[in-house]
Amino acid sequence: MNVLIVHAHPEPKSFTSAMRDQAVTTLEKQGHAVQVSDLYAMNWNPIASAEDFNNCENPDYLVYALEQRQAVKNKSLASDIQQELDKLLWADLLILNFPIYWFSVPAILKGWLDRVLVSGVCYGGKRFYDQGGLRGKKVLVSLTLGGREHMFGEDAIHGPLEDMLRPLLRGTLAYTGMEVLPPFIAWHVPYISQDARESFLNDFAQRLDNIDQDQALVFPRLDQFDERLYPLQPAVQTNNG
Amino acid sequence: MNVLIVHAHPEPKSFTSAMRDQAVTTLEKQGHAVQVSDLYAMNWNPIASAEDFNNCENPDYLVYALEQRQAVKNKSLASDIQQELDKLLWADLLILNFPIYWFSVPAILKGWLDRVLVSGVCYGGKRFYDQGGLRGKKVLVSLTLGGREHMFGEDAIHGPLEDMLRPLLRGTLAYTGMEVLPPFIAWHVPYISQDARESFLNDFAQRLDNIDQDQALVFPRLDQFDERLYPLQPAVQTNNG
Repeated sequence: MNVLIVHAHPEPKSFTSAMRDQAVTTLEKQGHAVQVSDLYAMNWNPIASAEDFNNCENPDYLVYALEQRQAVKNKSLASDIQQELDKLLWADLLILNFPIYWFSVPAILKGWLDRVLVSGVCYGGKRFYDQGGLRGKKVLVSLTLGGREHMFGEDAIHGPLEDMLRPLLRGTLAYTGMEVLPPFIAWHVPYISQDARESFLNDFAQRLDNIDQDQALVFPRLDQFDERLYPLQPAVQTNNG
Repeated sequence: MNVLIVHAHPEPKSFTSAMRDQAVTTLEKQGHAVQVSDLYAMNWNPIASAEDFNNCENPDYLVYALEQRQAVKNKSLASDIQQELDKLLWADLLILNFPIYWFSVPAILKGWLDRVLVSGVCYGGKRFYDQGGLRGKKVLVSLTLGGREHMFGEDAIHGPLEDMLRPLLRGTLAYTGMEVLPPFIAWHVPYISQDARESFLNDFAQRLDNIDQDQALVFPRLDQFDERLYPLQPAVQTNNG
């Protein structure tokens, strides 16, 4: 497999960075080809703007998704975006590795999603969910957070973590057609012992060793909806947020 | 009231920008004091990093939230953060005005949340949800999106929009103690007529004219949980995602 790890943590010595290193080691040992986009180290620009297009179709009025589609056709995407898009299209497995900021991705990673998942390639028109432009690829979210596991779940104070991750897991990754694997979660990281951290790293390595056997999460399919995207039957079933 | 509008759209002539202008006009006409943070115009830096602190407590190992707490005590937050935090603390009502990018906020606005909602002021320890540092303030999310209204809801292809907005409405805004008003949503904006756009602007003005009568959404309260944050009763009720 070709694997792209997109990593976003401001501290190179962080546990989240150790997870990235663990992933590289484990996956390379299995014979996979691995590329890493370390967004902080790359000084990644997260801001979607008119400067993302070498020739704006309409320089007087920016409609970002329209310019993306045009730039894909004309091969005029800004080079930093094109490089990341090339890595993404090369990958069979995408790993997003980050610390939770506000129950979501850090802004620098949000800006990778905003700019790299371009309309015209990753989605567009009726190409989304199971018909998305990135179908055939798998994606794993691996994240660290400060909260404890009992703070998440049906009756827990924050509700299920998967519900908090819904715009990412469903609204972004499943939307573009990728098979979304259950997230790997390292809980309470700033407060745990070195042993507990090593245990998470071992669990992560084991998870990656057996990634082929992972069952993807279930999301809507376009054949459950009519031409105008009204549901053909009520109550689409998913097994998570 | 003092009102802070945080606005994030790359196109100054966009409909989202017209919504910002509508909010300023309507609120000033009512006698409220209004400040606008136009993140694109300000060239806002969305990237949380060690540079956000004039004197890092631990220059060898960045723990972002710890440095925030220390910088609040020492008054050594980076000046761009301090300026936004001052505006936020001045405000009785916060309005976040943006186009949906990937069922979430654009990266530049995520970076405002990541950097400005500092630990030690906005939250910290047991100060979250109804005990959050920003309690007493109200917040309104006003957003535009390309999707149609029938694509959202219980049986709809994307599920309820409030569920997609959960990390923002609950995990961020309610978490810091603010009263979260129901979002104002302008649907299908890139594809609708000028009349339909004006109708949204009128609805928005009317909503803002009567903002005092808005019922806030319901979120968990700390008194529903024990000291370790285990639920005292099962099934915390909320009326949205």
